[in-house]
Amino acid sequence: MNAAVESPLVTRHDAGGITTLTMSRPASRNALSMAMMAALIEALDTVDADHAVKVVVLAAEGPAFCAGHDLKELRAIGRDGAALAAVFARCSSLMLRMQSLRQPIIARVHAMATAAGCQLVATADLAIAADNAKFATPGVNIGLFCSTPMVALTRNVGAKQAMEMLLTGEAIDAATAQRYGLINHAVPSGELDAAIMALAAKIAGKSPLTLKIGKEAFYTQAGKTTSAAYEYASAVMTQNMLARDAQEGVGAFIDKREPVWTGC
Amino acid sequence: MNAAVESPLVTRHDAGGITTLTMSRPASRNALSMAMMAALIEALDTVDADHAVKVVVLAAEGPAFCAGHDLKELRAIGRDGAALAAVFARCSSLMLRMQSLRQPIIARVHAMATAAGCQLVATADLAIAADNAKFATPGVNIGLFCSTPMVALTRNVGAKQAMEMLLTGEAIDAATAQRYGLINHAVPSGELDAAIMALAAKIAGKSPLTLKIGKEAFYTQAGKTTSAAYEYASAVMTQNMLARDAQEGVGAFIDKREPVWTGC
Amino acid sequence: MNAAVESPLVTRHDAGGITTLTMSRPASRNALSMAMMAALIEALDTVDADHAVKVVVLAAEGPAFCAGHDLKELRAIGRDGAALAAVFARCSSLMLRMQSLRQPIIARVHAMATAAGCQLVATADLAIAADNAKFATPGVNIGLFCSTPMVALTRNVGAKQAMEMLLTGEAIDAATAQRYGLINHAVPSGELDAAIMALAAKIAGKSPLTLKIGKEAFYTQAGKTTSAAYEYASAVMTQNMLARDAQEGVGAFIDKREPVWTGC
Repeated sequence: MNAAVESPLVTRHDAGGITTLTMSRPASRNALSMAMMAALIEALDTVDADHAVKVVVLAAEGPAFCAGHDLKELRAIGRDGAALAAVFARCSSLMLRMQSLRQPIIARVHAMATAAGCQLVATADLAIAADNAKFATPGVNIGLFCSTPMVALTRNVGAKQAMEMLLTGEAIDAATAQRYGLINHAVPSGELDAAIMALAAKIAGKSPLTLKIGKEAFYTQAGKTTSAAYEYASAVMTQNMLARDAQEGVGAFIDKREPVWTGC
Repeated sequence: MNAAVESPLVTRHDAGGITTLTMSRPASRNALSMAMMAALIEALDTVDADHAVKVVVLAAEGPAFCAGHDLKELRAIGRDGAALAAVFARCSSLMLRMQSLRQPIIARVHAMATAAGCQLVATADLAIAADNAKFATPGVNIGLFCSTPMVALTRNVGAKQAMEMLLTGEAIDAATAQRYGLINHAVPSGELDAAIMALAAKIAGKSPLTLKIGKEAFYTQAGKTTSAAYEYASAVMTQNMLARDAQEGVGAFIDKREPVWTGC
Repeated sequence: MNAAVESPLVTRHDAGGITTLTMSRPASRNALSMAMMAALIEALDTVDADHAVKVVVLAAEGPAFCAGHDLKELRAIGRDGAALAAVFARCSSLMLRMQSLRQPIIARVHAMATAAGCQLVATADLAIAADNAKFATPGVNIGLFCSTPMVALTRNVGAKQAMEMLLTGEAIDAATAQRYGLINHAVPSGELDAAIMALAAKIAGKSPLTLKIGKEAFYTQAGKTTSAAYEYASAVMTQNMLARDAQEGVGAFIDKREPVWTGC
């Protein structure tokens, strides 16, 4: 067995409550093979259960952030409908797992993010990119429309802008991605790590319980009518205020002292 | 009894069909205490019934536009779940009352709007801010995620941008708020009243019936699928065209004369 | 019978898989009379059935792109509710037909687009405008709120921005329309045809089957919750990958050759 095949698809690095998960198949441009998607889901499951983790950075190695589905794997499947369905089901599970994760996820986009790789960026709660990174949903160029990436893309970007990306398959640069709302910030390549760590550290200082409550509420209320969203969110606020961390935080604010979070 | 306590929480000023409601608790940064929320709801109910009012300006006195919930009141409630639920229910009622109001509401944001104060801005139909105003949803800093403000925020601002405000708690300036779509315009502080009055006067010149029909339709169609929204909106157009003001307006346009609105 | 009345309301021009449909009632600013809407729907039905057509450009002749409903026709109807309902039903059918069309539609906006004319722009999948074009939903000025244009407008443009257009009735310029997401690009008037043809040619080079699958999926998933949208879109991806054009496209990409589309 080849040692290179045995090296982990996703590596994990922990520091100060910030866990960085790095896709590590640079030769395949971190393509989302069945194995890579399984490794990401497994890494997320492990992180979710680890209460030392306050915030997650999703990063990648090599010349691309992520090139999307593994096309050689797709070609090998050919016309086996059940096997194809399993690929797209796993991909959607991965994206939904990112949103159901207890901790916020920041995408660290150092280079090109394409198709389901662009979907990873759109799905992350936050994203900072190097200003030479690019973003595309080019499935239309190979006859396979980026229909699942579109789900995430259209929940971040305006309809006309998403349509242009999807119908032309052309890449947008990081400045355009920021203007469209696909990423939060574009920074010079040399400042990417500092920007990511500054944002991650800010969030790592909050109550992890509060972050969990807020992130879950964000995605749950999004699909509701405004009045249903208020009914739901009001119940969330009440439960949140009953928690120890909110009692502590409100008290600390009034007493002008630093709060001490216990995460409960 | 202290005279200061007796002064109204919300003052009303009427001129030329434009009613300005001003939150008047500068010392508490116009915090949304139970009493302040009740006063705002009562003022809106009164305005809704007053057919001389064509458009409403929501303004505030003092160093802040509105600091959100009254934290001392929340702390005094402690862990009484029913009492907490009553606070958040009243807040959501206030926001929904703003949207169900017959008249359009323009927020006049002269200074910092935070948490449920930022929600007031997001909930108003239109908003103009002084260019030194700031906007934040900082609940995460005190352990109480801004889950109800998020409902209004995410219906104005892109997902990634809203998430950054919610997860970091940091303020954005007025230029950024305009770019995000949270406000319509940012103007120099000295031009705020002129900009507000110019916008309000423009709207006050329209048929109040037409404004009522349109505002109601705006929020009703928003939660529907496109085809359901068209079915609903087509029925609204038909009813609108049957009204006297539309018959008058269409006729006046064709005859190249000024329409005379009767509001029916 | 007057020859001018007999001239077609909508002309069709085909070249290289790109079909241009041109509204040709410049004297009435291409108002959407019952006849004009019927002609557009008929033209779209014909185009949909023509497999030589890869992409559609919606253009217009004369001093305006489209002035919206035919107000003289509306006035002649008066208060006949059934006849009014038929006008708005046909208009909504036209807009939904644009979205159900197999081929992508690019609006070529050379001049002012108002009310239901602005709705045509918002409804098109893509839009490029001359930089001197303007956009407005001015129904409020004639007592008839732009409730059906609002359905399309609010699915392209932020809530506060849409509200300002709807409540004031004022026009925005092409640069603002681009910033709001109502159009994709604003270009100098003299470069409009080149920009339209460059975009159309790009799309005409894709697999027409893939474009059909993608466009349909775009509008179908938009109204769903994220998890329902993923379930739906995953099924679409599987069906798409089973098609000959995707097998060809993926194979061609891996083999580094140009794909040959058969549209099946």
